[in-house]
Amino acid sequence: MRAAIITIGNEILKGKTINSNAAEIGRLLYFSGYEVWRGLMVPDREEDIGQAFREMCSKSDVVVSTGGLGPTFDDITVESFAAEFGFQLVLNKEAYEDIKNRSTAKGLPMTKEREKMAYVPKGAEIIRNTVGTAPGIYMNIGGCKVFILPGVPSEMRAMLDFVGRKIRLENSFYKEESIIVTGIYEATIAPYISDLMKKYGDEVYIKTHPSVSPLSGESHLEIEISAHSDKPEKAEEIISRLKEEIMRISESIHKLK
Amino acid sequence: MRAAIITIGNEILKGKTINSNAAEIGRLLYFSGYEVWRGLMVPDREEDIGQAFREMCSKSDVVVSTGGLGPTFDDITVESFAAEFGFQLVLNKEAYEDIKNRSTAKGLPMTKEREKMAYVPKGAEIIRNTVGTAPGIYMNIGGCKVFILPGVPSEMRAMLDFVGRKIRLENSFYKEESIIVTGIYEATIAPYISDLMKKYGDEVYIKTHPSVSPLSGESHLEIEISAHSDKPEKAEEIISRLKEEIMRISESIHKLK
Repeated sequence: MRAAIITIGNEILKGKTINSNAAEIGRLLYFSGYEVWRGLMVPDREEDIGQAFREMCSKSDVVVSTGGLGPTFDDITVESFAAEFGFQLVLNKEAYEDIKNRSTAKGLPMTKEREKMAYVPKGAEIIRNTVGTAPGIYMNIGGCKVFILPGVPSEMRAMLDFVGRKIRLENSFYKEESIIVTGIYEATIAPYISDLMKKYGDEVYIKTHPSVSPLSGESHLEIEISAHSDKPEKAEEIISRLKEEIMRISESIHKLK
Repeated sequence: MRAAIITIGNEILKGKTINSNAAEIGRLLYFSGYEVWRGLMVPDREEDIGQAFREMCSKSDVVVSTGGLGPTFDDITVESFAAEFGFQLVLNKEAYEDIKNRSTAKGLPMTKEREKMAYVPKGAEIIRNTVGTAPGIYMNIGGCKVFILPGVPSEMRAMLDFVGRKIRLENSFYKEESIIVTGIYEATIAPYISDLMKKYGDEVYIKTHPSVSPLSGESHLEIEISAHSDKPEKAEEIISRLKEEIMRISESIHKLK
């Protein structure tokens, strides 16, 4: 099952904001058994946003976007999405009440800009915002589950439970584990890892991440093992077998020195 | 002038690594006078990497990628890029010597995996790696300047000076500044900002970023003003004029309360 992530906002492309939302969503998607095949970062421009949804929806089972749901002139995610697919925008009463109550509690009037956040594509389900104001949106487009979430990390995060429930799979599980070894270079262990990957095939993935300890200056190599399987116990078993094989390889590399 | 950023690696899509490289590159590109119109995050898969370069190069003046230059089986950025455009890979002597010297200094042999990093597309210029092993690559493809950089942030960062020199423009400057106001909601100031944007046209962009102080719990609104212009003093002048207008608007909103 394939998933894609869309991050909307000039501040991301300018590097003013680091794209931590995509990482949080990526983890949820992987641990739910999906492979994330693409992440897109697009500016606050209608045609770019529309095109991103069109392209990602046509090739994915799940698409999650963040950003562009607020009250300002350049928060245009919902309008751009609706325009691209020809959906009418309708006032959602529940969203309207939520926004009105939140504004009233702060002593603020219901302006045109606040009302805008209550308009959603016809047929969409709203995801209530328990942290901020703008609701999220869920819609199924021809089998692709689309989630449109706010860009403020705390608001986005509060909606991930909803996403997790909607995308749950019955027969796809993902597990990962890391081993950290010292005194072994990435290039030295590379051919062994390559052989292991060939032996186990598509269900496993092994990736090495070299790093240097900021305190001791010592080199570490993290060996990350991940497995997809139709049963959680099967994925775990594959990982523990691989861990043993890698430990054995590491020991023989050390002995060779 | 349009620029695009490509981030390569499963660890990015899985959310194991937060994409801070794209943010650093985005800042360099913006401050060099370019508009970043797209960021792509792609897995370690040849067809995805090739497609990303093809699409971004066809629509951009500058493309910068990070990731996939190391010695392991899934470091396939250079091969995928070369295959997509039909470039032959040739051994670069300077790169080979650098890699060999670095390996020898560590008492390591020159393996097939290490040698691989010295192969670059025919006609490409290498960017020496002063921090790690794998060299970066620079190539001009039909007017699009392509930079292929390592994924390790410290190695990538050390190559940004090279990128900055190659992409320097004579007549495009970018400036930005932020004002932080308290006690004003994003939705309240939104219509005024919208009017200002219309008045100034394409050369300026104003974006508001609401946040809550983690210490005092007080709400802040950051108003970010940016301007592109053909002369640096012109961009600065536009920004200082806008700052005055926004300060005046903020004061009148406070007085209305």
